[in-house]
Amino acid sequence: MGPKHSCGLFGVCSHRKAARMTYIGLYSLQHRGQESAGIVASDGKRFRSIRSMGLVKDCFDDANLGGLVGRLAIGHNRYSTTGSARPTNIQPLVVDLKGVPLAIGHNGNLVNAGDLRKAMQAQGSIFQSSTDSEIFVHLMARSQSDSLSGMIDYAAEHVRGAYCLLAMTKNTIIALRDPNGFRPLCMGRKGNAVVFSSETCGLDVVGASYEREIEPGEMVIATEGEVTSRRFADLKRLSLCVFELIYFSRPDSVVFGLSVDGVRKALGRSLAREQPADADIVISVPDSSNAAALGYSLESGIRLELGLIRNHYVGRTFIYPTSELRHNRVRIKFNPVRELLRGKRVVVVDDSIVRGTTSKKLMQMLRGVGVKEIHVRISSPPIRYPCFYGIDTPTRSELIAANCSLDEIRRFLDVETLGYLSVEGMLGATGRKPNDFCVACFNGDYPVTFTTEPSKLALEKLQS
Amino acid sequence: MGPKHSCGLFGVCSHRKAARMTYIGLYSLQHRGQESAGIVASDGKRFRSIRSMGLVKDCFDDANLGGLVGRLAIGHNRYSTTGSARPTNIQPLVVDLKGVPLAIGHNGNLVNAGDLRKAMQAQGSIFQSSTDSEIFVHLMARSQSDSLSGMIDYAAEHVRGAYCLLAMTKNTIIALRDPNGFRPLCMGRKGNAVVFSSETCGLDVVGASYEREIEPGEMVIATEGEVTSRRFADLKRLSLCVFELIYFSRPDSVVFGLSVDGVRKALGRSLAREQPADADIVISVPDSSNAAALGYSLESGIRLELGLIRNHYVGRTFIYPTSELRHNRVRIKFNPVRELLRGKRVVVVDDSIVRGTTSKKLMQMLRGVGVKEIHVRISSPPIRYPCFYGIDTPTRSELIAANCSLDEIRRFLDVETLGYLSVEGMLGATGRKPNDFCVACFNGDYPVTFTTEPSKLALEKLQS
Amino acid sequence: MGPKHSCGLFGVCSHRKAARMTYIGLYSLQHRGQESAGIVASDGKRFRSIRSMGLVKDCFDDANLGGLVGRLAIGHNRYSTTGSARPTNIQPLVVDLKGVPLAIGHNGNLVNAGDLRKAMQAQGSIFQSSTDSEIFVHLMARSQSDSLSGMIDYAAEHVRGAYCLLAMTKNTIIALRDPNGFRPLCMGRKGNAVVFSSETCGLDVVGASYEREIEPGEMVIATEGEVTSRRFADLKRLSLCVFELIYFSRPDSVVFGLSVDGVRKALGRSLAREQPADADIVISVPDSSNAAALGYSLESGIRLELGLIRNHYVGRTFIYPTSELRHNRVRIKFNPVRELLRGKRVVVVDDSIVRGTTSKKLMQMLRGVGVKEIHVRISSPPIRYPCFYGIDTPTRSELIAANCSLDEIRRFLDVETLGYLSVEGMLGATGRKPNDFCVACFNGDYPVTFTTEPSKLALEKLQS
Amino acid sequence: MGPKHSCGLFGVCSHRKAARMTYIGLYSLQHRGQESAGIVASDGKRFRSIRSMGLVKDCFDDANLGGLVGRLAIGHNRYSTTGSARPTNIQPLVVDLKGVPLAIGHNGNLVNAGDLRKAMQAQGSIFQSSTDSEIFVHLMARSQSDSLSGMIDYAAEHVRGAYCLLAMTKNTIIALRDPNGFRPLCMGRKGNAVVFSSETCGLDVVGASYEREIEPGEMVIATEGEVTSRRFADLKRLSLCVFELIYFSRPDSVVFGLSVDGVRKALGRSLAREQPADADIVISVPDSSNAAALGYSLESGIRLELGLIRNHYVGRTFIYPTSELRHNRVRIKFNPVRELLRGKRVVVVDDSIVRGTTSKKLMQMLRGVGVKEIHVRISSPPIRYPCFYGIDTPTRSELIAANCSLDEIRRFLDVETLGYLSVEGMLGATGRKPNDFCVACFNGDYPVTFTTEPSKLALEKLQS
Repeated sequence: MGPKHSCGLFGVCSHRKAARMTYIGLYSLQHRGQESAGIVASDGKRFRSIRSMGLVKDCFDDANLGGLVGRLAIGHNRYSTTGSARPTNIQPLVVDLKGVPLAIGHNGNLVNAGDLRKAMQAQGSIFQSSTDSEIFVHLMARSQSDSLSGMIDYAAEHVRGAYCLLAMTKNTIIALRDPNGFRPLCMGRKGNAVVFSSETCGLDVVGASYEREIEPGEMVIATEGEVTSRRFADLKRLSLCVFELIYFSRPDSVVFGLSVDGVRKALGRSLAREQPADADIVISVPDSSNAAALGYSLESGIRLELGLIRNHYVGRTFIYPTSELRHNRVRIKFNPVRELLRGKRVVVVDDSIVRGTTSKKLMQMLRGVGVKEIHVRISSPPIRYPCFYGIDTPTRSELIAANCSLDEIRRFLDVETLGYLSVEGMLGATGRKPNDFCVACFNGDYPVTFTTEPSKLALEKLQS
Repeated sequence: MGPKHSCGLFGVCSHRKAARMTYIGLYSLQHRGQESAGIVASDGKRFRSIRSMGLVKDCFDDANLGGLVGRLAIGHNRYSTTGSARPTNIQPLVVDLKGVPLAIGHNGNLVNAGDLRKAMQAQGSIFQSSTDSEIFVHLMARSQSDSLSGMIDYAAEHVRGAYCLLAMTKNTIIALRDPNGFRPLCMGRKGNAVVFSSETCGLDVVGASYEREIEPGEMVIATEGEVTSRRFADLKRLSLCVFELIYFSRPDSVVFGLSVDGVRKALGRSLAREQPADADIVISVPDSSNAAALGYSLESGIRLELGLIRNHYVGRTFIYPTSELRHNRVRIKFNPVRELLRGKRVVVVDDSIVRGTTSKKLMQMLRGVGVKEIHVRISSPPIRYPCFYGIDTPTRSELIAANCSLDEIRRFLDVETLGYLSVEGMLGATGRKPNDFCVACFNGDYPVTFTTEPSKLALEKLQS
Repeated sequence: MGPKHSCGLFGVCSHRKAARMTYIGLYSLQHRGQESAGIVASDGKRFRSIRSMGLVKDCFDDANLGGLVGRLAIGHNRYSTTGSARPTNIQPLVVDLKGVPLAIGHNGNLVNAGDLRKAMQAQGSIFQSSTDSEIFVHLMARSQSDSLSGMIDYAAEHVRGAYCLLAMTKNTIIALRDPNGFRPLCMGRKGNAVVFSSETCGLDVVGASYEREIEPGEMVIATEGEVTSRRFADLKRLSLCVFELIYFSRPDSVVFGLSVDGVRKALGRSLAREQPADADIVISVPDSSNAAALGYSLESGIRLELGLIRNHYVGRTFIYPTSELRHNRVRIKFNPVRELLRGKRVVVVDDSIVRGTTSKKLMQMLRGVGVKEIHVRISSPPIRYPCFYGIDTPTRSELIAANCSLDEIRRFLDVETLGYLSVEGMLGATGRKPNDFCVACFNGDYPVTFTTEPSKLALEKLQS
Repeated sequence: MGPKHSCGLFGVCSHRKAARMTYIGLYSLQHRGQESAGIVASDGKRFRSIRSMGLVKDCFDDANLGGLVGRLAIGHNRYSTTGSARPTNIQPLVVDLKGVPLAIGHNGNLVNAGDLRKAMQAQGSIFQSSTDSEIFVHLMARSQSDSLSGMIDYAAEHVRGAYCLLAMTKNTIIALRDPNGFRPLCMGRKGNAVVFSSETCGLDVVGASYEREIEPGEMVIATEGEVTSRRFADLKRLSLCVFELIYFSRPDSVVFGLSVDGVRKALGRSLAREQPADADIVISVPDSSNAAALGYSLESGIRLELGLIRNHYVGRTFIYPTSELRHNRVRIKFNPVRELLRGKRVVVVDDSIVRGTTSKKLMQMLRGVGVKEIHVRISSPPIRYPCFYGIDTPTRSELIAANCSLDEIRRFLDVETLGYLSVEGMLGATGRKPNDFCVACFNGDYPVTFTTEPSKLALEKLQS
């Protein structure tokens, strides 16, 4: 029940099936963005691209993939950061940079995007989209350098915030990760090919072996037959997004050097120690909380049950019925197993609570099938601050934990008990140093500061 | 990893949102058929219908649902029983029966469909589809009766096999279930409205309360303000399809009076007793085997882990890449959690093995991430005979258990040990009398016989 | 400004590009039906078909045409005879006739379709569409004959009215024309291939040479390498539809042995003699009246001008704006040349007046640009009776000439003078014997009688 | 048979149905561009737009037009100037100009577009499309002015060539025409609304009254309740495109103050005087040559006949068949009336010859139906030079008259005689001063010069 995420990146250099591998890779990263998908391929002479609103499976087919010839390709899954989805925002962005074609895909969020945009507009730049990719490209266009990596240096000097980028010219793919390292980006090998992916699950599905993460502040430059790397910025305060482990990434991925499944079980175990409950069974809100629920069960000794069945066919296009049928919105996605739950005292393990409205409906539904006691346990601390580094959290006024006490939330959910994991407990469960992570959404300590609050919404004003 | 199923049925009588409720109901029954979907609504004067290839979410939108006015509606999800999907086979079928419009949807398989079709063609009948629904309607058309229920009586006298049917005229919905009771069909109430659904999960999502199953050989007739019922055939040998419990139905449904989740856990427990294993962890092939794996874990005391992550975005339209990338087919759907599995002795619980080819790939993949020992445990007996009552099993020559010994299968899968649940163990786990079930796919004892093997394929010859 | 027509037929036997030739042929017959189009091809083993709502150009593309393999094909353009267009009515109809696939396309209208349908339904037949093709096929299914031509004999014995048919089995195309000969159907040759087309323009575009018309009551049977012919019914009173010459057929076609362009010019010349006018210029309502206007000009010596410009991009899907913009409906299609018409006395030649509403708007528009005098001249007699043989005329109550005197029509149109061609003048202009034609729409003398008025609308009741 | 044209412009200020009027206006201007269409509407607060590949009828429907709320709208029909149509080139272009939304549509061609683009790219500008509209907008962005008209002044100072523009902000529409006046643009009134249209036929269809042409070098600024005008550039050598009169514009339009129909008839009359022929009949290549053919007939006294029938259903998407059927390409669009032409001596009047290949096929086809003598008469002089002001002519090497003598062309066409109208005859027929026109395509005298030949193709290199 976590917040929404923004993007997935995938790229292949030096493989004759580069675009098809990217297609498979994007499939495995679909959870990172469902609004639109795009692939740009290069055969060394020209680019060919497909970019479309919708899921990966709806954007591509055998015919259009067949047209994406070439040994280089980069792809992107996008999650809309606002309600108004705009086709011009579909990535990878393709531009003509001083006569040279460039494709670029971006994951993260720049905190000075608005200022940069305004300043460049005042000097005559014209923007087509509201994406950070385009900010980056306009900066590159203003560089005096003739080389791609020189132009990236110039742009990187000016941007602040979270960014993983894949940039492609006719013959080169450059992968880079911001000096704080907010978002993950890794590389692998498949024969002579180099593969880049937001998560390691993308390497698995194409049969590539994991090599390493791109380092914060590092730029990896891959061409046919050669991979070089250099640092483009000094390492800043390391700020790994802990929510990648709690909720975003797939449990079969290794992110920031950690097994996501392993961390989630450890979060569940810590939660069981910090927030025990006297109950008959433990259930998960599937699928994102499954591992934490299992950890809770193993640590507490309370039996795990599969109490909620998720309908995976429900997509973004579901037409929720009006009025009298509307209360079923949550039920269409999650249906309780009545015979199992009736009369039981139940621990419900969830990964997070954002607004609290969906959780409330879920609890009402559980109560409706006769659950005797509900003990909600959250495998992360209360979310009290919005994220400006690429997670689509709502504003503070909509975050329930920013506005209500623990007991107020409990009463809002109408449950017997409610317990969150502590920040310390959470960080301890990762097995890395606590200072390695950004925990701004929990405590407001933003590792990269900004003068005016970055308003992504302001950029959406133009039109659809 | 079970066989494919054929259809889902849903209907609503006497509700002003009949079509929208049916839409939601079909969403919850999507697992029973993904090839096409259709809804026919009646406003008492005329029918309006939408029928389309594709998932429920792709067939309907707010605009077309808005056109389905009226207080009666029936809907159908179809799974193609052959490779060649044909638009004319999309149900519910709508026909002009002696000047009266009739809509009909069917779940199951008639074993004498070929003979009936041939005989009626010889007398001048013309068939548009290859569906059993149309056989049924042609029989109704030949009846001398003027009443809908009289025409159904006539048709029911002639057909043999498995059938649940929803038939709708302008003002009436008739639900019936064959005298053997192969497939489930239940009814519920929502205020004054009557709701029919293949499984109870359909009632849940529309907020209807479960009333009862339609009895084998019973016909329920619902009109505005009145529901009547009568027996149209003597009860034959009860032949509940045990595979509905093992694999097809949703775990949150009650089918044949049994909680599907509860039966599956019991199957897993029985399996643990009959086929113990010396192992470190138990994993499931998600999601259909989750409950059985949990049961196995609880009974054996071996820890459950979430070792395989399923990508739910992979749909029927996935374009599997050619040659060198093809071995990833299974991996795109199921990816193992490497860090968890490496070096472990693992019990893999699956609900069934049909051809064995997908299982083999799965085991290779597990071995590839370093699993030390694989102990496959199947929560049903070996499938040795094809089903002719509505499950899309392959021919005998393709069923691995019909052609190989247990040890041969084990060696084919290349695993340390392999164990199936016994027929007795399976039936015992249901909690009903063993004789209540059809177990023909396990032992070849077909409860409804046939002279020539019913060849559904023969009907597909016409054209696409 | 004539009434709407119903259908175009095209077929090819024994050519390796049979489907592509049919596609081109249907393009040239598009004026005969714009609602839907279909092609069915046979490779001797099975049928493949494409049938879709829309224009030929929207129904077919290179990919789907490529799939229509085989040396036989028949195609059909359909004009909806009612407002509610139904996909199931798209032709050619494909059915399984006693296990043998049959495709059939029909042009015309059976006057006893309703009676036949009712009688067959009472005996258990089930209809899917409201087309005459299906009536014909159901009759064939009831024949005791085993041969295709025997089954057609049986069906032809029972039907009455107007029908040109193309029927195709795996290896044979049969072309037939009703014994009254209402509608045209011709055949041609291209090398060894036999080509059938509603009009000769279809032969021209595929490079086939015209051979002859199918005779009324004749059945031509084409297979690979052989063409045979026989009479299936005695010639009845010859009843060629004179409106094919006045309005429907393309001017470059030869129909009923007559040049359509030639007849239309002759109609215009006769009109000039019967209905002279004192005017400055002659203009046509393009394009259907162009030849008649030219004839009028040549005979009268009054100069022809191109006073109305037709926008050919306006299709059936034009969204006519509401209220204040609605008066422009006619103008969007026909715009007057203001500079030419201002202050002139103008003869407006049109082929026919049906309801009169469009004509009235046209005259208002001419008046609006400053035309001084309008003299409307119609190159056919007043339409006073509906057609039941395949032309989509409205009911009598909507036909302006059935309800108003000549002067009333003139005043309704608000023009200086109005003159129609006489029935004798019209028939004389054709150059054939007057008795060869059906002129029922002008004088009510229906050559094939019927007990109850054939109501095509009644068949549309089912659903969309 | 003339060259292709580039664009149509339409705009409405101060009407509550602004977008729907624009839709109707674009319908009437469809002949000016068939590749794509777009409408942008403003309600004073934000823009809403629809832009799509295809004909007007395929781009818009009732639902999407309904969303284009507001009292201002501009629309554009585009003809691709190269083979590779790119969605990003669809106009009107919408950009964020220093935080203010601007929509812009362009008709014409800038001769220094390449130089401007290159220079701005070197300074960091990024281009999304290859359209001249975007060049113009980038120049505006570089202006130091804060006002829209000031920014336009700056841009207009830098561009050279042909341009009619409609630019829209939230509350204003600005219409301007280059100082040479190459392309037409007029304005009209409908009540309080101001309407702009490339041709007067656009005013007619929306019921607006013609007011006047936008003057060369003039900028008209329309807001709610006020229309002002000012000169933004000194009038340069007047350079009206004579081809607008010969071929492009609709005959019902008034262009450059001249009736297009009247000029074409006068061209035909002059042609008859300059290039008489001894023949039986005159025919036109419909529809663009109809008026010239009529003029020829009236002047020469040789009878006009409708010898070629054009199939208006043939669209851009026609799939021309391969090999043996390919020779029918021309015939599918134009079919001769065999009975009329056989044995005749025929004058064929056409408006122009570009490459000559289509003309040749047409003449072969005429010969094929038995025409005895063919006398080709062209109502304009030989096209010897490419156009760089917005007409899509091929390069010199492809222009038949640039490479062959009159007799060589005659022999290529294989006709008895061939005659072109002289430049003097052509200009004389217009009734305006000869110096008012650009006749560069006939004599190479380019009124606006350029250093390097403007290569539109170079801009298309990026990607599709």
